[in-house]
Amino acid sequence: MARYPGEENERRFPESVLRDTVARVFAACGMTDGDAVTLADSLVHADRRGIHSHGVLRVPDYVKKLTEDGVDPRGHPRIVSDAGAALVIDGGNAMGQIAGTLAVDAVIDRARSVNVAFAAVRGSNHSGALDWYTMRIAAQGMIGIAGSNALPTMAPWGGVDKIVGLNPISIAVPGGEHGPIVLDVALGATAHGKIRVYAQKDQQIPEGWAFDASGVPTTDAAAALDGLIQPIGGHKGIGLALMVGLLASVLSGAGYGTESGNMVDGATPGADGQFYLAINVAAFRDIADFTAHISRVARQYRDSRRADGVERLYLPGDLEAEVAERNRRDGIPLNDEAVALIVEAATKLGVDTGPLLQAAR
Amino acid sequence: MARYPGEENERRFPESVLRDTVARVFAACGMTDGDAVTLADSLVHADRRGIHSHGVLRVPDYVKKLTEDGVDPRGHPRIVSDAGAALVIDGGNAMGQIAGTLAVDAVIDRARSVNVAFAAVRGSNHSGALDWYTMRIAAQGMIGIAGSNALPTMAPWGGVDKIVGLNPISIAVPGGEHGPIVLDVALGATAHGKIRVYAQKDQQIPEGWAFDASGVPTTDAAAALDGLIQPIGGHKGIGLALMVGLLASVLSGAGYGTESGNMVDGATPGADGQFYLAINVAAFRDIADFTAHISRVARQYRDSRRADGVERLYLPGDLEAEVAERNRRDGIPLNDEAVALIVEAATKLGVDTGPLLQAAR
Repeated sequence: MARYPGEENERRFPESVLRDTVARVFAACGMTDGDAVTLADSLVHADRRGIHSHGVLRVPDYVKKLTEDGVDPRGHPRIVSDAGAALVIDGGNAMGQIAGTLAVDAVIDRARSVNVAFAAVRGSNHSGALDWYTMRIAAQGMIGIAGSNALPTMAPWGGVDKIVGLNPISIAVPGGEHGPIVLDVALGATAHGKIRVYAQKDQQIPEGWAFDASGVPTTDAAAALDGLIQPIGGHKGIGLALMVGLLASVLSGAGYGTESGNMVDGATPGADGQFYLAINVAAFRDIADFTAHISRVARQYRDSRRADGVERLYLPGDLEAEVAERNRRDGIPLNDEAVALIVEAATKLGVDTGPLLQAAR
Repeated sequence: MARYPGEENERRFPESVLRDTVARVFAACGMTDGDAVTLADSLVHADRRGIHSHGVLRVPDYVKKLTEDGVDPRGHPRIVSDAGAALVIDGGNAMGQIAGTLAVDAVIDRARSVNVAFAAVRGSNHSGALDWYTMRIAAQGMIGIAGSNALPTMAPWGGVDKIVGLNPISIAVPGGEHGPIVLDVALGATAHGKIRVYAQKDQQIPEGWAFDASGVPTTDAAAALDGLIQPIGGHKGIGLALMVGLLASVLSGAGYGTESGNMVDGATPGADGQFYLAINVAAFRDIADFTAHISRVARQYRDSRRADGVERLYLPGDLEAEVAERNRRDGIPLNDEAVALIVEAATKLGVDTGPLLQAAR
């Protein structure tokens, strides 16, 4: 739920018009119409849930990947190994969302027959917000787990070389009356983009976010940008990030850590990896008993006592679901800067942004 | 690698003699000889790796569980549901290690045929150090993942009710020349036992470990014991702990969080749950290519540059493997207090501790 500069100049855009415009931008990069809609949907999903760092703000970056940096807009992911509950998918250097969609469809389908399925993806690229995948799995009455490699911004605990990514993991558990419980977290104490915002405003970052380049904790935003992001929980978070990265890359033969690129030169096209796991609840327990149990746990959590000054307790995904409800109804809020960047990218590609701008509220 | 009071009065015991003595203690509680050896092996494994909090220090507590608190020494775990890659195991109110051993054997066997297998365990109890299970899976060329419910010592982020456990997770990845990479972490910033050590010594605990009972961060050990353990990474760690707990309990119908007991009344016998996952590497990639890739990642990690004053960089499990090598050779170090407690428990049950005491070095 990061806040970005300029939210005071915000307008709201109906998500269908936003998705359509963004899809036309990606189609103009050479993607098929179907793939372009898939990619646009991933970004609009994140904006809907208030995770603007993974939303349409990414359009200029994605256009650059597809037109200059070597990601194949016509890349065609395929299943290259299929053995029981184990699937390997080669993303064909398409965007990670195209490979990930194939992977999620495949693990859901496979988990219908063998009840658990794990897909390891190689030949992939940036895959967007991981809850987009896990929520699709959870909607099928399955627990969805997804993890991704990320460009390295952390060091081993006690080290100074950027060789471990924030490597996000998402877990979505089918829920009862209030929908799924959805966790989607990177394993660093903060994100690179957040430190950049502080640096632009010339503000100190909070303690615990970063180390300087020599591995000493710092609250100086510029030193942090030169330095390292701190993992959550010291050696524990670095260990978890390492493991998510290994599951997302080495199992399929994708590039791990620096093999997938770095923060200076960017991502190496087609070197990224992800994993997707589906666990079919009904194979373990009656699904109604399961969701009733999850509902009890959720109620206890939300209704438990709060510390002074805390208004509400949120289960993972609660806040995002609340924001999504409003954004679906009222439109997706975008500030003028973000809109200008999308319009600029679209215009360069000959895509008409008139319908988008006219739909603003 | 927690250090306990009294390590200055340490003697070393050959692990075979220690395991044998502890097994005879458990057999005297009514366990079969085979189950007693299994349970003793779990504890000696932890001591061997320097994780004494999960080692033979637990003997008096385990004896109490088996003889007074309602855990069934003759409990007989069985597979109650078997569907493709999905297994449900009822622990029969045996110790968690007995159910977990059945579960690990079952997921390894199943992952040989369908390549991925997930066992959800209910009717279980305390299961010891989780790397005991995941390392057994990794030894078969499979990635092993295990998670457990734990008695709640944390609150929702912003809350004050103890309803979330530290819920540990272990992941072991088969490695190359240096053996597996083995992570085993609880999702709290510290453990209850560590705070107790500070309280006994009347010392302040480090910042970031705990909240007092009203949810305010504290460095007062007594206030922390009355209060809450902090999760790693704030809302991220609580979310991860919640998810590990749900996977370990709700999927099998075990008790989640407070349903499995609390820190005042202790664990409810037979209410605990765990999960075990095996992923057969060879189904994804040639195992030699995989371990060569893991070795490259491991070398880069260990050989990367260190911050000032840091002597060595450890991959997850490196330090424990180093300690294990020495302890296997020189014997397991136990301080006089720990030995006295084991001797007391053994003597009450009529078990001769002469051989153990004579073997001390």
